[in-house]
Amino acid sequence: MNISSKLLENAVNALATLPGIGKKTALRLALNLLQSDKQAVEEFCQAISDMRKNIKFCQKCHNLADADLCSVCLSPKREHSLVCVVESIKDAMAIENTQHYNGAYHILGGIISPIEGIGPNDLNVQTLVERVRSGEVKELVMALSPTIEGDTTIYYISKQLKDFDIKISTIARGVSFGGELEYADELTLGRSIVSRIPYKD
Amino acid sequence: MNISSKLLENAVNALATLPGIGKKTALRLALNLLQSDKQAVEEFCQAISDMRKNIKFCQKCHNLADADLCSVCLSPKREHSLVCVVESIKDAMAIENTQHYNGAYHILGGIISPIEGIGPNDLNVQTLVERVRSGEVKELVMALSPTIEGDTTIYYISKQLKDFDIKISTIARGVSFGGELEYADELTLGRSIVSRIPYKD
Repeated sequence: MNISSKLLENAVNALATLPGIGKKTALRLALNLLQSDKQAVEEFCQAISDMRKNIKFCQKCHNLADADLCSVCLSPKREHSLVCVVESIKDAMAIENTQHYNGAYHILGGIISPIEGIGPNDLNVQTLVERVRSGEVKELVMALSPTIEGDTTIYYISKQLKDFDIKISTIARGVSFGGELEYADELTLGRSIVSRIPYKD
Repeated sequence: MNISSKLLENAVNALATLPGIGKKTALRLALNLLQSDKQAVEEFCQAISDMRKNIKFCQKCHNLADADLCSVCLSPKREHSLVCVVESIKDAMAIENTQHYNGAYHILGGIISPIEGIGPNDLNVQTLVERVRSGEVKELVMALSPTIEGDTTIYYISKQLKDFDIKISTIARGVSFGGELEYADELTLGRSIVSRIPYKD
């Protein structure tokens, strides 16, 4: 692409570093920003710059935070004895958006994956053990991906915590709500029959 | 969407102001920026901020420029007696990318559209007349959209320039190269038969 202005070219190249944004889209975005109010563009840059510079990670659960602790860990309304263990910040957000969960979180920052070279020491497991040791946790909900890696991580964590008197559960697995049986994958459907649950009226 | 950090929320809202980027995509982009190097994010913001603050418009053709005149108007290799009149900066870029044009440009900044309330005085027509009056222009190529608005604009400009001895042409219209006749729209196909051209071997 031939861009006549060096300044525009730099902005396009910057925008094109974002995931899923190619040169053409970046150009469209840059031209849009050019037509916006100067003040608005300044605020746009400021918001992004502030986020990167000032955002912190919660010292307790490793979620995003504006202070030393995140809003969930600080909230007196949450049940702090219930901790949901998730892979990433995005997963915690997804669970938070369901509005069905009122406990705290613990972000591992990944799952054990020998293929990608991620071992237990690369994850926030030690801080989880500390949290359990402090006695504030009664139940851990493992909300990890239903994959070999996820299962390995759950197994590893459960072994680390075997000396503590806490309950460890995993999120329910089975056929999606609203999904048609015909289109459910074989593994999910097969396992959902094996681990069938009693009918409650 | 429930975002635990105010800083992240501000960045997501800023990114979501871009065209075609919703809240979910904005969140993905913001989390990606969070994982990037601090220095890289600073440069990202700087590039956008610099563009908006420092970019200029060419005093001659109204294209984007880093100085008073754009790179095309400054280039001694270009044929400055040939001027292509386009609606927007994007159109000039599209023509530039074909690498089939070696003349100069004139960006109108829109086309006459009574429905959108755009009249001739909202466009850079006066500066075009001045350029023609100065005697440097021998031919104008009208590369405007093949719509009623585009045709109206061409008509208006040609009336403004009727006293000057210059050639005015429009870009060729017809069936696309590589397109199948079957799928060409009726208007284009009909007109391309009416305005058929002699076969050259």
